[in-house]
Amino acid sequence: MDKIKVSLLGSTGMVGQKMIKLLSKHPYIELVKLSASDSRTGKKYGETVRWIEHGTIPEKFRDMKLVSSSPEDQKDVDYVLSALPPEAAESIELNLVKHGINVISNASPYRLAKDIPLINPEINYEHLRILENKDTKFVKNPNCTSAIMSMPLGSILGLDYERISLVSMQAISGAGYSGLPYMSIDDNIIPYIHGEEEKIPAEISKMYGTVQDNEIKSREIRMSVTSVRVPVKLGHMGVLNVHIDGKVSIEDIINKLNDFNPFKGFTGLYNAPEHPIVIHEEEDRPQNAIDTYNGMEVHVGRISLKDGNLRMVILGNNLVRGAAGITVLTLETMKQLKLI
Amino acid sequence: MDKIKVSLLGSTGMVGQKMIKLLSKHPYIELVKLSASDSRTGKKYGETVRWIEHGTIPEKFRDMKLVSSSPEDQKDVDYVLSALPPEAAESIELNLVKHGINVISNASPYRLAKDIPLINPEINYEHLRILENKDTKFVKNPNCTSAIMSMPLGSILGLDYERISLVSMQAISGAGYSGLPYMSIDDNIIPYIHGEEEKIPAEISKMYGTVQDNEIKSREIRMSVTSVRVPVKLGHMGVLNVHIDGKVSIEDIINKLNDFNPFKGFTGLYNAPEHPIVIHEEEDRPQNAIDTYNGMEVHVGRISLKDGNLRMVILGNNLVRGAAGITVLTLETMKQLKLI
Amino acid sequence: MDKIKVSLLGSTGMVGQKMIKLLSKHPYIELVKLSASDSRTGKKYGETVRWIEHGTIPEKFRDMKLVSSSPEDQKDVDYVLSALPPEAAESIELNLVKHGINVISNASPYRLAKDIPLINPEINYEHLRILENKDTKFVKNPNCTSAIMSMPLGSILGLDYERISLVSMQAISGAGYSGLPYMSIDDNIIPYIHGEEEKIPAEISKMYGTVQDNEIKSREIRMSVTSVRVPVKLGHMGVLNVHIDGKVSIEDIINKLNDFNPFKGFTGLYNAPEHPIVIHEEEDRPQNAIDTYNGMEVHVGRISLKDGNLRMVILGNNLVRGAAGITVLTLETMKQLKLI
Amino acid sequence: MDKIKVSLLGSTGMVGQKMIKLLSKHPYIELVKLSASDSRTGKKYGETVRWIEHGTIPEKFRDMKLVSSSPEDQKDVDYVLSALPPEAAESIELNLVKHGINVISNASPYRLAKDIPLINPEINYEHLRILENKDTKFVKNPNCTSAIMSMPLGSILGLDYERISLVSMQAISGAGYSGLPYMSIDDNIIPYIHGEEEKIPAEISKMYGTVQDNEIKSREIRMSVTSVRVPVKLGHMGVLNVHIDGKVSIEDIINKLNDFNPFKGFTGLYNAPEHPIVIHEEEDRPQNAIDTYNGMEVHVGRISLKDGNLRMVILGNNLVRGAAGITVLTLETMKQLKLI
Repeated sequence: MDKIKVSLLGSTGMVGQKMIKLLSKHPYIELVKLSASDSRTGKKYGETVRWIEHGTIPEKFRDMKLVSSSPEDQKDVDYVLSALPPEAAESIELNLVKHGINVISNASPYRLAKDIPLINPEINYEHLRILENKDTKFVKNPNCTSAIMSMPLGSILGLDYERISLVSMQAISGAGYSGLPYMSIDDNIIPYIHGEEEKIPAEISKMYGTVQDNEIKSREIRMSVTSVRVPVKLGHMGVLNVHIDGKVSIEDIINKLNDFNPFKGFTGLYNAPEHPIVIHEEEDRPQNAIDTYNGMEVHVGRISLKDGNLRMVILGNNLVRGAAGITVLTLETMKQLKLI
Repeated sequence: MDKIKVSLLGSTGMVGQKMIKLLSKHPYIELVKLSASDSRTGKKYGETVRWIEHGTIPEKFRDMKLVSSSPEDQKDVDYVLSALPPEAAESIELNLVKHGINVISNASPYRLAKDIPLINPEINYEHLRILENKDTKFVKNPNCTSAIMSMPLGSILGLDYERISLVSMQAISGAGYSGLPYMSIDDNIIPYIHGEEEKIPAEISKMYGTVQDNEIKSREIRMSVTSVRVPVKLGHMGVLNVHIDGKVSIEDIINKLNDFNPFKGFTGLYNAPEHPIVIHEEEDRPQNAIDTYNGMEVHVGRISLKDGNLRMVILGNNLVRGAAGITVLTLETMKQLKLI
Repeated sequence: MDKIKVSLLGSTGMVGQKMIKLLSKHPYIELVKLSASDSRTGKKYGETVRWIEHGTIPEKFRDMKLVSSSPEDQKDVDYVLSALPPEAAESIELNLVKHGINVISNASPYRLAKDIPLINPEINYEHLRILENKDTKFVKNPNCTSAIMSMPLGSILGLDYERISLVSMQAISGAGYSGLPYMSIDDNIIPYIHGEEEKIPAEISKMYGTVQDNEIKSREIRMSVTSVRVPVKLGHMGVLNVHIDGKVSIEDIINKLNDFNPFKGFTGLYNAPEHPIVIHEEEDRPQNAIDTYNGMEVHVGRISLKDGNLRMVILGNNLVRGAAGITVLTLETMKQLKLI
Repeated sequence: MDKIKVSLLGSTGMVGQKMIKLLSKHPYIELVKLSASDSRTGKKYGETVRWIEHGTIPEKFRDMKLVSSSPEDQKDVDYVLSALPPEAAESIELNLVKHGINVISNASPYRLAKDIPLINPEINYEHLRILENKDTKFVKNPNCTSAIMSMPLGSILGLDYERISLVSMQAISGAGYSGLPYMSIDDNIIPYIHGEEEKIPAEISKMYGTVQDNEIKSREIRMSVTSVRVPVKLGHMGVLNVHIDGKVSIEDIINKLNDFNPFKGFTGLYNAPEHPIVIHEEEDRPQNAIDTYNGMEVHVGRISLKDGNLRMVILGNNLVRGAAGITVLTLETMKQLKLI
């Protein structure tokens, strides 16, 4: 079988590096091109990147010369994966799509466009089907926090609930490698992250939406989000409270979370975890320092239901489930659905 | 006028040191005795303490010899202030009271006893009046998080609300100087603090309670609390969400918070801040690194009211408003109420 | 007596803010003008600064409008104090001096010029005398690390030593507020700081130099420096090792350090500490978290002399002794020397 | 071939966990017994350990019941590996040896005994030969800092040098999981580590010693060490300065470091790195956050030679090269030397 040939935009950033790691030994996806900002075009990857992933740069990419993100340089791959920052993404990605090049992107622009699927694979891979008749595929992945916090919500949205309240405590890597000066966030909490509190409910609503006339119609979700930046490097943690009006038992909810695995029976989903949601019973878990290692799982703990108030603590790896891993899993899923 | 002579139990801990600072130049309270654990009795304070407050130990305490916490050693002061850890506090404080010695304590045992006032001065100094006819006064101060988070609640409890949901992100100093190993909490969030989630609603309910037959009857408050430990040294921050059923404007709430100052017109309350609640309009405030300096104020920011959901971020200094400062202010208030 | 009127360049940075604090209540220096980068000219200080010093902006500066750093805007003060970054400093300061405006500067350009004194007041205030006959005074202060590490060196340079080896572990604030991203330095040591290892010996050599023909002739000092960045916010610590060939006792060295106070008998040196060098006998001191509070003192501990190897640990506040405080003390000294 | 059966003392600590990881898939060493403090004897490993290594506990150890460290429980293994804390190690290890049980230990007691080899395999595996005629083998591994810093010293000791000066900046994990409270070391440097400054020169002197009459005679090394604790979790970094009297070129030294590999040609040394010393040419390397991943390599950077002063920065993983890895490599080496 021929491998799927992919190119990577934004290859020198933290998410880009993580993608390189995930793809360096992939059985059927071959990363054949790397690009970064224009000033780096033509340089060898190993000489221009500030590599921060553990271990050294995988051999085969060290001497690979960076290409531009123009359609000319990108046209001969099967898929372009984008880990671009939002400003760059807006025009570059659309331009590639206009030139008939398939793109799966992590960047925020167009995430809410009705005709572009916003994919967190386990939740809504079926949305990919709206691309079946399109010549060029353009797929988006959600914001890191949306990707993580959306995972256990399927167990709640069907209930008779009042309003979901989410407090997300987000890691510094979510702002990018240079996003926050040490002096600003060490020993501090900054109770605001630009744009986050609007994005999260909107993206989750779209991911749990339905397909109508080849477009995605968002589900109405009553949700209030407060996002704060905390001095940890990796892992977005959320505390979710929701008042449940009807009758439900905590066991039902735990069972639903435990049973959640829409990919049972699928093969070839190399980056799909066996248990997308991992339930913790110890009262002091999940913890960023312990539970973000594998990266595609979403961890849920401290589940309680008292006086109608359901509470859970949710934790995920913002660079893997929140970014690089989800993009690769999206591509894997598209292959299994024979969209590629 | 004669000064009020006080003794300090637990003088070598973080809260004890903070009290020494607050009392070292107090106009009418004179700290005349220090005690610590038995093994230190007889030693000079400056030689046994590991001083961590900024600056050096105030001159007059450096050579003061530590006394025991027995009634014999404590009987000749007007008031004993206690910054003891809970296990030690339980028997020592009660023993002093039984011997007719007045005690104001920060420690948790007996905080919920109906006949012992639990005082956050601005909120419920009137509760102190149940001591008017008692020969020996025994007063408790709330848990650090309860002390801080309770301050703005007066603006909400009178409204028609569904349920208050509070996520408290608590500083490491709240666990005591040696409470958490670096390896356990650096770059980590621990989503659990023993006992905290029960204490906070119970203590706040009592502080907002009413006096009946010389006892405190707690107010019923519907509140769910999730407490997590975050890697910051100072400042407990809370995110509060509450669904308001009736009509209220955000301006009303802000005005109430701004106007909150039950001590207007009082004199001699040396540790009462001019504005007990400080409202921040900048979207990225309050912050631990900036807003915990003075210490007795409680900072509130990010106030919003959308679709009936009222949200605010609350921050306070857990060693001052949460501990040492509130005890001293309680004593000051008792003097102004002529209970001393 | 008329106050000395000063202007402050670079007023919004960390060092600038520290200077504002030091000058806000100064008995005879009045800060009357603030400037910052051009884009801020005309704005109110309180509206454009990101204030990070503890407490609020001193009242009188909050509404002060920023002026430019041009000679027109700066000409009517007695002295311009500069906390500019090096690139900006190079042309701005020289231009002011050319227009006859007196400047005392913290910035690196021209620090090694022979006709410009480089002042760490206690060490070489006598160098200021080369300005006696100059109409316009231009004075430099040393790099933060040079300022701190130079202080105890007077006790060594007169000895018969082989070579001084200094390892400086420098705080993040030394790189400026936004100098280092959290992701780059948290839980990390970076064993290199651009330019530092050359600057420190050269500046110390000049500070310990002699006046010849109205110029400063550097002293020859054999010194090797390794500078590393460590994840602390405040305080530069150095470990100094030097092989002493001749005979000297450790008591002699400690006595010299203890007795070091060239300003004994001076008056009006508001920012000169009573003990410029503070000796610690406890084996685990000095520590950044404890000993950087007052700021103008340099702390020395762990002094030992074994097999001819003299070792000491040196610590100072890089924003005060290393920057803002030294500039103000320089101005105070100039006044006492009647150079103003 | 039969596997070497080993037992592990101190299996629940940080070093113990690291050994479990290293041994869980070892080709010819089988970990068959785990022990910890007496109070845990009889419990299942997975239920009593606070697992902090990345990922989950290797399957086969999860349900293994802990045994005691008595000779009865330990006698039926080929080797006992010890990751005990020093106080426990002193009597337990000697008792096992007296009962004829072979022990390789990381703990400090008896490290300097002349008849017990102190092994950092690449440096002095030949010292193991003094055990050839002993029925029971007792081997020690060096302190974490000694293990790391000793590695590049072979390139210097043969030169005509004056005195080696080493400043070691040591990670918090070196003090054990609970060794340092967060409040004591965050944002701080503590310029003292108990016992360290004596241990390091003494242990390095022994490792570079010679065999005489079946005993180890230490080499005389002129070395001054200052050890400070810095707020990083992993990696001990050292800055080494040494005045070289004779002629040597920096290229010679770099070549010696690069060529250092006494195990070339050996097979079966599973934990011996291909390059025991990794030279970095980038001026800002090595860094704890980047270069401690693999763990058995020692990284050297910033090599310079000016005015006779040779300087290098040394970095190693204190839990692997400094503890768990060195013990396993010692056992592997003993097997290759047919001492087992």
